[in-house]
Formats: sequence, C-alpha cells, structure tokens
Amino acid sequence: MPTSSETPDLTPATSSDTASDAGDVLALVAQMEMVAFLRFAGAAADATDPERRLQIAGLAGASLARQERLLARAGEVLGSPEAVLGRYVAFDGAFDEFNSRTHARGWWEELVKGYVGHGVAYDFCRIVAEALDPASREVVVDAIDGELTSESTIVLVDEATNEDEQLASRLALWGRRIVGEALSVVQVLLTDNASLQRLLAQAVAARFAETGDDVPAAPSAWLFGQLTAEHARRMSRVGLAA
Amino acid sequence: MPTSSETPDLTPATSSDTASDAGDVLALVAQMEMVAFLRFAGAAADATDPERRLQIAGLAGASLARQERLLARAGEVLGSPEAVLGRYVAFDGAFDEFNSRTHARGWWEELVKGYVGHGVAYDFCRIVAEALDPASREVVVDAIDGELTSESTIVLVDEATNEDEQLASRLALWGRRIVGEALSVVQVLLTDNASLQRLLAQAVAARFAETGDDVPAAPSAWLFGQLTAEHARRMSRVGLAA
Repeated sequence: MPTSSETPDLTPATSSDTASDAGDVLALVAQMEMVAFLRFAGAAADATDPERRLQIAGLAGASLARQERLLARAGEVLGSPEAVLGRYVAFDGAFDEFNSRTHARGWWEELVKGYVGHGVAYDFCRIVAEALDPASREVVVDAIDGELTSESTIVLVDEATNEDEQLASRLALWGRRIVGEALSVVQVLLTDNASLQRLLAQAVAARFAETGDDVPAAPSAWLFGQLTAEHARRMSRVGLAA
Repeated sequence: MPTSSETPDLTPATSSDTASDAGDVLALVAQMEMVAFLRFAGAAADATDPERRLQIAGLAGASLARQERLLARAGEVLGSPEAVLGRYVAFDGAFDEFNSRTHARGWWEELVKGYVGHGVAYDFCRIVAEALDPASREVVVDAIDGELTSESTIVLVDEATNEDEQLASRLALWGRRIVGEALSVVQVLLTDNASLQRLLAQAVAARFAETGDDVPAAPSAWLFGQLTAEHARRMSRVGLAA
C-alpha cells in the first residue's frame, strides 16, 4: 500500500502544458490497451475451443481499435507522430513491475488480477481525464468504458465464489494483494510524471469547486481514498471481501 | 510432396451448392487469418522494443479486421451466424499438423515458414476463389492481398541471404520442406471438402474456357503444378533456390 500523505509539489499548469499533459494521459491509456491486447491475445492462443478463441480474439481486436483512437487523438493534440511515439514509449514498462510482482496461479487469480488491477488503473485515468480538453476526455472515457464492458468478469467470479467458499476467501486475499500493488503503480506514475500531478490537482480543484467544499491540501491523499473506496465497491460486486 | 495424380471424383455443382461452397472458402480464409493473428500476436508479445511491438500488434489487428469482413460475407452467403460458425469451426485445426511438423528454429526459419506456407495456402485460395460469386471473391482476394502486404518478409530475407551464404542454403533447404508440407495441407483440404473440389474444377474450367485449350482431366494435378511454379517464383524473389 503506498503512503499517500506526501504530495509532490504541484506546479500550476500553463497553457503550453495543456496539450502536452493530454498527450501523456492518452499515451498512458494506449499502453494499457496494449497490456489488455496482449492479455486477450495470450488467452486466445491458449483457448482450445475455436468458438471461444474467436470471441477472445475479438476482445483483443477491440483493445487495439481503442488504442488506435487514443493514439490518433494524441496525434491531434501533440501535432506529430514522433511526439506521440515518444510519449507512448515513455510509458512502456509502467506495468512490468506490477506484473512481475503479481504472478497469478490459475484462471481465477488471473481474472481477479485483471478486474482489480485494471479497475484501479482505469479509475485513476478517469479522474485525471476530468482535467483534459473535452475531445481527449471523451476518447479516454470511451476507451475505459469499452475495456470494462469487455470484461465479463463480474458474473463469472460472482458465480464461482457463491459456489465455493474456499475459493472466495483465497480470491479475497489475492484481491487485497493486487490492489496494494496497483495503488503502488499509480503512486509511481504520479511521482514520475509532473503532467499527471498537474491534471490530478486540476481535476480535484474542479470537483471541489462544484461542491463548494475546501480543496484537499493533498490531492493524492484524496485520490488514494477514492481509489480504495472504488475498489471496495468493485469487490463487493463480485461478492468478495475487500 | 503429395501425389497429385489422383483426382477425387468431381461432382457437378448444383445451384444450391454455390452459396454453401462460398461459405467454405470464406470460413477457410477466416481460419487463416486467425493463424496469422496468433502468429503476429505472439511476435508482439515477444518484441522487446515498444515501437516494434506496436507495429506488430497493428498487423495482428489488421488480420482480425480482415477476418471480420470474411465472416460477415460468410453470414450474407450462408444466412445465419450459426451456419458461419459451423463452417469456421470445421476448418479449425486445418493447419495444426502443418505446424506440428514444421517447428521453426529461430527467427529466419519462422519468417520463411510464414512466407512459403502462407504463400501456398493463399495461392490455393485465390484459385478456388475464381469460382465464387463476385462479392465473395472480392472479399477473399482483398483479404489475401492485405495479408501478403503485411509481410515485409521479402526485403528482410533477401538482404539476409545476400549477406550470408550459409544461411541462404539452410533456408533454401527449409523452404523445400515447408512447401512439401504446405502442398500436403492443400491435398488434405481438397480430399476432405467436396466444396473445394467443385470450386477448383469450376475455376479450372473457366480458365481454360478463356484460352480455348482442353480442360485438364485432373484439376488437382494442374493445381499442384501451378502452386509449385508459384512457389519457385516466390523463392527466387527472396534469392533462395526452390
């Protein structure tokens, strides 16, 4: 679990940052689509039933189509394919440590890993996307929504854990490990990218401006509270203790 | 190398066969796209450079997009998604034996295997597609053309074998093994599918009607002659002895 009490210095955004920051979010989500693509493609290769393989390959293709839209929008925002590629490559490996630290044993752990890990990452991206220009935000939110509907995880896990109490308690434990590692990924992303810090601060400020409450002094502390609460809701939807 | 002297009995096509036969070719090529997809997806997973991984994933996505068009046309021709799935599933595993008998050692053999193996399979499909209705033929030919331009094999292999004579002779030998196995796949496909036999006979008859020459008594003998000649041309394009 990352400590979220220390917030990096938040430098105020200048107008020249805006496009650049949007480029970072778009590139980051495009990398997530690559992760999703590789995950689905691997599952398609492993599938023994041709009909199931065809379905899973379709999910892999949908991830790539979303990636294409994200990179196309990044191109509009950043102005050149080289700039897009630079951002995209910079986020390569952002999930490598997460993956190496969370080696799933078997299908159920793999499913919960994707559900919890992607859930946290997407919640984070959805929040920072609130500070993007409307067109970029729409592309990001559409990509996230599309990725989440691809996952038929909820029904599958819910059914399995209803039937098998031992599995339910093993997966609950596993889910707690995954969420800790996923929150660490978000922490590292924020620490390494001033752009994401700026967007988070702007998104938080905008949210609190709406309600009229005081803006939290530490946006990242607020963020981790949000992500943890969302995680608890997500676990309860599949009948697992958070 | 299959013996191509025995032609299976060719039953004349009835009008009710036409749509059904087209469905078989579309489903077969759709399975080839799955093979191509899995091959590209595996290469994307193995790629260490993120830019290269992105490119290869794009090729995987293009294979899936072509597969979608093939299955959509099969749906138009056959009239129901269930019928499409039935044909598609029937061709599952058509390339399994080829794959298990041609285990490539290393990147170059993998590349030549794809180049030669896909080359033969696509040449076969292109010939039987000549007997399809125009819309189905167009979808099949577009899919094949798209798959072939995806392959930057020619330049790569040509350069490598120019520089390395030992590699050139190893790959030439490998290419001869691959073409033998690939022709066997075609032989089995013809033996197992009356639809493909009918289409081949129709395509050959149409070709010879154009030239005014006598139609060969054994369309499959003619076919294997064509496939072998195309293979020789293909090998010479990459600077390898057929």
